[in-house]
Amino acid sequence: MNFSSKLLENAVNEVSQLPGIGKRTALRLVLHLLKQPTLQTHQLATALTNLVDDIKLCKKCHNISDVEICEICANPRRNDEIICIVEDVRDVMAIENTSQFKGLYHVLGGKISPIEGIGPQNLTIDSLIDKVRKGDVKEVIFALSSTIEGDTTNFYIFKQLEKYTIKTSTIARGIAVGDELEYADEITLGRSIVNRIPFENSL
Amino acid sequence: MNFSSKLLENAVNEVSQLPGIGKRTALRLVLHLLKQPTLQTHQLATALTNLVDDIKLCKKCHNISDVEICEICANPRRNDEIICIVEDVRDVMAIENTSQFKGLYHVLGGKISPIEGIGPQNLTIDSLIDKVRKGDVKEVIFALSSTIEGDTTNFYIFKQLEKYTIKTSTIARGIAVGDELEYADEITLGRSIVNRIPFENSL
Ligand SMILES: [Zn+2]
Ligand SMILES: [Zn+2]
Repeated sequence: MNFSSKLLENAVNEVSQLPGIGKRTALRLVLHLLKQPTLQTHQLATALTNLVDDIKLCKKCHNISDVEICEICANPRRNDEIICIVEDVRDVMAIENTSQFKGLYHVLGGKISPIEGIGPQNLTIDSLIDKVRKGDVKEVIFALSSTIEGDTTNFYIFKQLEKYTIKTSTIARGIAVGDELEYADEITLGRSIVNRIPFENSL
Repeated sequence: MNFSSKLLENAVNEVSQLPGIGKRTALRLVLHLLKQPTLQTHQLATALTNLVDDIKLCKKCHNISDVEICEICANPRRNDEIICIVEDVRDVMAIENTSQFKGLYHVLGGKISPIEGIGPQNLTIDSLIDKVRKGDVKEVIFALSSTIEGDTTNFYIFKQLEKYTIKTSTIARGIAVGDELEYADEITLGRSIVNRIPFENSL
C-alpha cells in the first residue's frame, strides 16, 4: 500500500496487527475514525490503555477483574465448595449468563498445548491443586472445550486430583436444546446417546 | 454480556463501535491485547490518537496528508493540467499503485447521496470548479465508482464544467484483465463491447 500520510500508515499498521484484521480492513476502520468526532477516538484509545495498564487477575480464581478479589469470589452467596474449571474469561461470562451455576470458577488461562509451547506450568493448575489440598473444595467441574488440548488438560488435572477425596464431574455434552438431530455431528450425537439421562430428569 | 470487569467492558464497548465489529469480535480483540506486551497497546492507542489529532487534508487536492500540500501536489514532475476526480484516499492509493497516472487528484470526500443526506455542498466540488476556472486545467478524468450515486455526482460535476473548454474523460470499464467472460456481470460485459478499442491499441 502506497500511503499518502505517515500518520495514516502508522495507524493502519498498528490496527492490522490485531488478529484477523488485514490491511484493507484496518484502512477501512481507520478512515472511519477520521470521519467521526476526534473525541470518540480519544475515548477508544483511553479505554484500551486503561485496560492494559490497570487490569488485574483475581487472586483466587485468576479471572480478569478490576480488583484483587473478583466480584464472584467475593460474593458470600456463592458456594465455594464447588469449583468450575474453565479456560478463560469468555467461558466464565457464558456460564454466568445461564444463571445456573452458583459455585466459584478457576480460570486456567489456556489449555495444555505442546504445539503452542503451553505446558502445565504456564497455566494456573498449581493454584487449583493448592485450593483442593486446603480441603474446602468438595467438587471440581471440568468445563474445558472438548478438543484434544482440552481433554489432555482435563486428564492431567484429573490425575493430580485423584489423591484427594473430592467429587469430579464434567459438563454434559449433547444435542443443543432446540437443534434437529439430523444436523448434529456424529460425535456429539453419539455422546448424547451414551450419556442419556432418565426421562423424568428432563421434565 | 456479563462482564467481570468495568475496564474490560469499556474497552469492548469502544471497540464494538467500529463498523463491522460486533461485541464478540471486540471481546476477542481486546483479550488479544491483554495477552501481548502492554507496550504494543500503547503504540496502537498513540497511533490512533496522533492520527486524529494531527492529520491534515491537502489544501490543493483534499487528500489525507501529514502536511498542508501533499507529496503528490507538491511534486514538480506531476502534470497539474490533468486532474483525476476520486471519492477518497483509497482510490488515490489504488491509482498510485498502478504507476499509470502522472497528473494530480481531486478528492471529493464522498458522493452525492440524498439518502445519506450528502449534497454537492458537502463535497469539495466548489474547490474543483475554482481550479478549472483559474484556467490551468486541461483535462478532468472522472474516476468515481459506477453506482447511482457515482453517476449522479459525475453528471452534476460534468454539468458545472460544461462552460469551460476542457477535455473530460472517464476511466474505462470492462472485463478485468485475466477474468473469464462467463463470470463477468452483464452490464460490465455490455460496456466492454460498446466501448471496444482498436485491436492494435491492446497490443
Ligand atoms: Zn475471582
Ligand atoms: Zn494534494
